[in-house]
Amino acid sequence: MNKTINVIKIGGNVIDDPVALNAFLTDFAAIERPKVLVHGGGREATRLSARLGIQNKMIDGRRVTDDETLEVVTMIYAGLLNKRIVAALQARGCKAVGLSGADGDLIPATRRPAEPIDYGNVGDIDANLVSDRFLEVLFSAGYTPVVCAICHDRHGNLLNCNADSVAAALAVGASRLGRVRLTYCFEQPGVMTDLTDEASLVPLVTPAIFDELRSSGKVSGGMLPKLSNALQCAADGVGEVRICRAADLCGLGGTIVRQA
Amino acid sequence: MNKTINVIKIGGNVIDDPVALNAFLTDFAAIERPKVLVHGGGREATRLSARLGIQNKMIDGRRVTDDETLEVVTMIYAGLLNKRIVAALQARGCKAVGLSGADGDLIPATRRPAEPIDYGNVGDIDANLVSDRFLEVLFSAGYTPVVCAICHDRHGNLLNCNADSVAAALAVGASRLGRVRLTYCFEQPGVMTDLTDEASLVPLVTPAIFDELRSSGKVSGGMLPKLSNALQCAADGVGEVRICRAADLCGLGGTIVRQA
Repeated sequence: MNKTINVIKIGGNVIDDPVALNAFLTDFAAIERPKVLVHGGGREATRLSARLGIQNKMIDGRRVTDDETLEVVTMIYAGLLNKRIVAALQARGCKAVGLSGADGDLIPATRRPAEPIDYGNVGDIDANLVSDRFLEVLFSAGYTPVVCAICHDRHGNLLNCNADSVAAALAVGASRLGRVRLTYCFEQPGVMTDLTDEASLVPLVTPAIFDELRSSGKVSGGMLPKLSNALQCAADGVGEVRICRAADLCGLGGTIVRQA
Repeated sequence: MNKTINVIKIGGNVIDDPVALNAFLTDFAAIERPKVLVHGGGREATRLSARLGIQNKMIDGRRVTDDETLEVVTMIYAGLLNKRIVAALQARGCKAVGLSGADGDLIPATRRPAEPIDYGNVGDIDANLVSDRFLEVLFSAGYTPVVCAICHDRHGNLLNCNADSVAAALAVGASRLGRVRLTYCFEQPGVMTDLTDEASLVPLVTPAIFDELRSSGKVSGGMLPKLSNALQCAADGVGEVRICRAADLCGLGGTIVRQA
């Protein structure tokens, strides 16, 4: 494939804000194909669980997906949010096809072992198993996959996966077809050493810069695993990873993560 | 396309019975490609509405789809049921791709006018607009579409459609690619002149036989529009329409509906 394949992930903060989501989808529709949109879930799943009297069980800050919760996230991610986004993109002239990882065996996953912590119906992904063939079929015909983070185990069971990991796996899978740019859209302008100061944005992260940011304590918390995963994607064949604001999707801002 | 394209519709009675559904999906997986599965919703949507305190509004025995109800049916049909069926088919070696009518612009629909009766977010389908191109892309690559009855209006809105009509429109659309057999799986063995006696099964319905069955009163009620639609499909290019029990999917029983 000659053209760069754009894999773009939006998180819950964009999905929860109709104005921001509409603006984002207009920008996404304008990006040249081939492209993939990966979306998280936002607060809709938590809201529906609450209305149904299902308790959110968290262990170490991560959600446990019991059987009832798997039904809720499948309804919200693969049903309501995915189809709303697809219909909105169709209205913008983008030939979107909404998918879970079960569809076309796009993203097989393995149930996470119950030891040491049992997270329930949660799956981990091996990017080598992502169906680049299905992606190629859709790209060649001009379609744009819109993918939620519900995957399957090939034995008939659905599994709840992490949307960042789904985006990373799709980017690595797509890199077998051509050059890939993976963009994580985010509530901040990118990686910052001072979250209160946009001027502290780190424009480039390489493995050497990552080591320095980590050891000096300039970057900490949830950004460390995000950067570590982004560097792994770059090592696994993804040409460029960018972390930026959703509103800057078509711009040049944010943090670029590269192997060198 | 040289091979016959099978378009098969299952209704809520099969979906509501896990044993019957599993047996049906095993039969469906064994049918030669190309094929399409269209599924209705069953009682899950009514159950979820009840749990959420959303009242089912019926006019003349038909469900009104207000905004809240559209969310419920999108979650249940396009989310929970569609992905459960897809995962079950994948486990049976069938490369299923779960779709709504919005995905790939497969089935554009028009919001039904609010006069004389306002059914809310309900759509009607023009089979001429069904994307036979998207079907061909999937068929050629060996994929099997699994389609729910949520469609879109091309202006960003989802619409609840009738699953029998979705199956009919897909069959007529697919007939532009090759010979199509449309099968309606059903709780009865086929069209019967005495619902208490299986020996009263009508093996063949043509326009002339339909007129006789109707004028004599031997067939009445909900079967009349079903037969009328089946005859229209046959007139619109679908080679054969069969109405049979879900358990007889791979058999030869039931009622065949043909133009002549």
